[in-house]
Formats: sequence, C-alpha cells, structure tokens
Amino acid sequence: MIFDHIALETDDIAASLSWYLSILKDPKILYQDKTWALIESSGVKIAFVSPEQHPKHLGLKIESLEQEEMLKSKYRDAEWKEHRDGSRSFYATDPSGNLVEFVKYESQKD
Amino acid sequence: MIFDHIALETDDIAASLSWYLSILKDPKILYQDKTWALIESSGVKIAFVSPEQHPKHLGLKIESLEQEEMLKSKYRDAEWKEHRDGSRSFYATDPSGNLVEFVKYESQKD
Repeated sequence: MIFDHIALETDDIAASLSWYLSILKDPKILYQDKTWALIESSGVKIAFVSPEQHPKHLGLKIESLEQEEMLKSKYRDAEWKEHRDGSRSFYATDPSGNLVEFVKYESQKD
Repeated sequence: MIFDHIALETDDIAASLSWYLSILKDPKILYQDKTWALIESSGVKIAFVSPEQHPKHLGLKIESLEQEEMLKSKYRDAEWKEHRDGSRSFYATDPSGNLVEFVKYESQKD
C-alpha cells in the first residue's frame, strides 16, 4: 500500500479551503460539496471532512489484487463501500485506534 | 509550502511501526526513539508520536526565506524550536483547530 490522502476534520469547509489554498504550493480543488472537499498540492491529496459526515483518517491506496485479497482475508467483517468515482474502500484501525481507509481505484490494473 | 509529513498519535510506537511497516511499500525507518518515530514510504513521511510528548499534526515545509518571513509576520508570537537535524519549526492551528507544524530545513537554499 502507498499513501493516498490525509483527511482532516473541519467545522467550516470553506474556511479550511481558503486557509490551505492560501499557503500550499499550486493547489488544486479536486472535489467540493457541503460535507467534504479534496485538494491536491505537490502530488499530495488532503481532504477536509465534517466530523458528523466523515471521520478523520489516513488514506492508503491498495495497489494490486493480491493486496486486496490479503486485506479481505485479514478484515473479513470490513464494510466495503463503492464510491461515485468507481473506487471502493473500507475503514480499519491501526494498533492505536487511528482510522485508516484502504482504497482501491477502478482504473488500477490488477 | 508543500506537504512534509503527517504525525499520528500512538500509545505503542513499536506496535505502530510493526503494523505500518508490514503494509506500506518499501518502508524505511528514518528515526526511532522512545517518544517518536519517523518512517518514509513512496516519498511520504509518517511520524508516530506519543501524545504526552508530541501532539498529532500535519507538517508543511517552508520552501523559501520569503515564506518564512510571511509566516513570522503572520504568527508573531510563534515559538520556533531548533531541532537536532538543524531544522526549525513552529506550530500553528488551522481554522478548525487542527495543528500544523511549519518546518524549515537547514539544507534548503533561500
């Protein structure tokens, strides 16, 4: 797995976007609605999420079918969700309870 | 500024290292002691910090003297700290209270 994104909690998505867009290098807004937003800068994606809608987390990208099978074997009760962009993901926790989202993109070759 | 690192809280650094090293691609341990550790995978640095010693945060790299001067003007009361590797940094909060560490490395050209 490789790093995919970090998701920070915010109680005001517009204010967070404004703050980060003003200090990050060549930022791009990849997505924005009322419950979350996603930006990219220098190849790193940062999501801003409303705590009531989405939890803060670290996103890791599943790179192969082999990795996906390993995760399915390790996390048998995981609730996979299909997203609008065709990606699929589920949440797990690391040993200290930090939330990690494992995400597989549709366009990835297996 | 560009992304530098993310710092996650852990109550067991060894357990966190073991978990992330087992799932991340080509991970390297850059630093480890009893209070924190730093790993790198695919060009992304993730720190593991003990809540009592270090707060969880997002690290952003200051890329120029101009940016440093802007931050010094904006955060006049910031407490800059010098680190063993010659870097200097201070903590600020984003509009929703997420902690952000602004770090300037010694080797950077101004």
